[in-house]
Amino acid sequence: MSEFKTVRGMRDLLPEEARIMKHIEAKARRAGELYGFKEIITPIVESYELLSAKAGDEVRSRMFVFKDMGDRMIALRPEFTASVARLVATALRTEPKPFRLFSVGSIYRYDEPQKGRYREFWQSNFELIGSNRPEADAEIILLTDSFMKSVGLKPAMKIGHVGVLRGIFNQEKLEDKTQNAIMQLMDKQLYDDAMERLENAEISNEGLEIIRRLVELKGSNVFDVVAKMMTTVAGYEKAVGATENLNEILKLISLSGTNIDMTVNAGFARGLEYYTGMIFEVYVPDMNMALGGGGRYDRLIELFGGDPTPAVGVAHGLDRIMLGMQEKKAMEGIGQERTVMVVPVQEELRPEALKIAQQLRNQDIRVEVEVMGRKMGKALEDADRRKIDCVVIVGERELREGAVVLKKLEKREQATVKIEGLAEAIVA
Amino acid sequence: MSEFKTVRGMRDLLPEEARIMKHIEAKARRAGELYGFKEIITPIVESYELLSAKAGDEVRSRMFVFKDMGDRMIALRPEFTASVARLVATALRTEPKPFRLFSVGSIYRYDEPQKGRYREFWQSNFELIGSNRPEADAEIILLTDSFMKSVGLKPAMKIGHVGVLRGIFNQEKLEDKTQNAIMQLMDKQLYDDAMERLENAEISNEGLEIIRRLVELKGSNVFDVVAKMMTTVAGYEKAVGATENLNEILKLISLSGTNIDMTVNAGFARGLEYYTGMIFEVYVPDMNMALGGGGRYDRLIELFGGDPTPAVGVAHGLDRIMLGMQEKKAMEGIGQERTVMVVPVQEELRPEALKIAQQLRNQDIRVEVEVMGRKMGKALEDADRRKIDCVVIVGERELREGAVVLKKLEKREQATVKIEGLAEAIVA
Repeated sequence: MSEFKTVRGMRDLLPEEARIMKHIEAKARRAGELYGFKEIITPIVESYELLSAKAGDEVRSRMFVFKDMGDRMIALRPEFTASVARLVATALRTEPKPFRLFSVGSIYRYDEPQKGRYREFWQSNFELIGSNRPEADAEIILLTDSFMKSVGLKPAMKIGHVGVLRGIFNQEKLEDKTQNAIMQLMDKQLYDDAMERLENAEISNEGLEIIRRLVELKGSNVFDVVAKMMTTVAGYEKAVGATENLNEILKLISLSGTNIDMTVNAGFARGLEYYTGMIFEVYVPDMNMALGGGGRYDRLIELFGGDPTPAVGVAHGLDRIMLGMQEKKAMEGIGQERTVMVVPVQEELRPEALKIAQQLRNQDIRVEVEVMGRKMGKALEDADRRKIDCVVIVGERELREGAVVLKKLEKREQATVKIEGLAEAIVA
Repeated sequence: MSEFKTVRGMRDLLPEEARIMKHIEAKARRAGELYGFKEIITPIVESYELLSAKAGDEVRSRMFVFKDMGDRMIALRPEFTASVARLVATALRTEPKPFRLFSVGSIYRYDEPQKGRYREFWQSNFELIGSNRPEADAEIILLTDSFMKSVGLKPAMKIGHVGVLRGIFNQEKLEDKTQNAIMQLMDKQLYDDAMERLENAEISNEGLEIIRRLVELKGSNVFDVVAKMMTTVAGYEKAVGATENLNEILKLISLSGTNIDMTVNAGFARGLEYYTGMIFEVYVPDMNMALGGGGRYDRLIELFGGDPTPAVGVAHGLDRIMLGMQEKKAMEGIGQERTVMVVPVQEELRPEALKIAQQLRNQDIRVEVEVMGRKMGKALEDADRRKIDCVVIVGERELREGAVVLKKLEKREQATVKIEGLAEAIVA
């Protein structure tokens, strides 16, 4: 018989991992709630037209695309933002702003599978739509910080602003295509290639020199870095405005009373072309990949046919957060509640065992009932192996007194306990 | 500009509905936990070969099937059981039984869309694998009852046993094909057609008469019904065994101390061919559709290449549960926590507003910060419209005293409150 397998690039999360993933999802949800965001659920299947509208060629070529029976081109979402933009441009079009919306779920990308990279993975995605003000940018970074800390990680934010480089490029009248190519090289940290491309473009020597100095500017002394950026870009009006905007965002964050680990990087770029302002990524120590990233994209909603609407957002990679937690040993005991196993001594006592199990569940205790018809010794062995906390032994003699035997496996204690006080005895 | 739409048959759940769906998911998860089930997450995309292995022709023809870039036939899962069976037959093959596994997520069927029926919908799916005993069957029904009650519904169970009819068919040596056709007609409650088909089959007059009487046997006086079934099928050994098994399951449930609304229906059949024992569906008053259903399928794991393994399970339709809750007005207030809005009187006080917001969030209070730069009047109007509970007004004069103005909108109260006691004042 052929052995069935998961599809290439897909994987199962068995209970141990699923428990952590659900814990991370719950924390993402809670972070959203605490910041006043509302959850929405959009379909995993969307039209190819929608999903490819904003995606760069790279994402587009990595989508799961197919035709449905009605011959429509459809695809599995490679991210959430297109679906949110669709909603904002249609169903929510006339609703008063701001919107704070979030989603938690799986997304799909046809990447070459490798360790820790799958074709189905999970994200939490937050969007604050309708505000062009720095407090909105600050909020998205604060929320990301809260979420990461709530799963036991130590987040460090890498922050930049595409308006600084773009401001100079624009004033130098560089073509969009050239700008995008350079930003993409910078995103890949190929700064030499970026500078080479720039040298071959129509740019003033002054402009070139400023860019050269800008990409060197970075550090965790963020207000120093921003002050140097300010001097560097003097004379480039849009770049000055962008630097002021970045300064305001950083000021708001640092005055918020939350201790946030920040680095500013003037040469930081994110690949997607639609960012218009602040951009950021979140890292944790010893892990050489971003666990999340986002920024401001004030022209995206228009691209989806909506009214011009400023917006700022972030997506977090839940699989990467899980990896980070595994490396950081932040996961011990997560979601591991006390579990009780109820075992009847004889067949005839099964109804009593079920009854006691139901009583305990009504008191919010997790209960397994013996359903294999095993002898007591076997059942206890199994309970021990699976790290069950307590076994309730239902025997005739004790039942006559309205009692059962409660065995606490870890403590190796055993006592006869009245059924009405059983829940308390278990929790004690 | 073209207006982007959801793909036909797909829908968005906006915050109001998403909140209810997430509440239902959380209750399904909690029911699973209380009964000792562990969550697993399997891929939404599986091989067509796997998903079609057990599906009848009907389900098979309604799958979202496509080829990936490697030319493999893949599909979106139309249910969970095939994925669970794959796991049991492979990764979990050598693990000691029983397994109690559950999943909560979306599934996909290419049905004609109509009111309340979509092509993407949600299920919670529970499987108890490894036990052939009646306490396992009872557990699945008790769990379903607990889950339905936990979302405020009044569940009624319709219970049958395919072994009764099958036992007679087998002893009468009816071909499998004929048996399946008759069971499917009965599932659709086309009893006349079923009887006609049976009359044309090779069956003794006695057998035919017994079936005729059986399909009339039903009622909520379950032990009466079972007693009559027992007399009716006397002489058909397998059918007698099945009836005894059903009787045991019902006895365990009724002695469990939980009040369960049950009806036994001897002519009850479920379409899928893989059921081998007890089958059931759950209904709520005034809703003419099952909110969930399941039963015993002792030969399914083998079909997926695993060792012979008895199993019993259930799937619940979360969309239908949501519909049931809407009709039953069981949803009021679900997940609607107190929300606070923090508004600075002047621009310069934005950092203070952020700081106060962070303090409240650290105390687990849901906070929105004003990010639109609106004047106080506009912000209050908006807060009122969106039913925000409290507004915290951050003004210079109060700040000098370490205080803010707390406005409780519903109570139309307003007071100056010290910042250190703000959380308590909000909750009070």
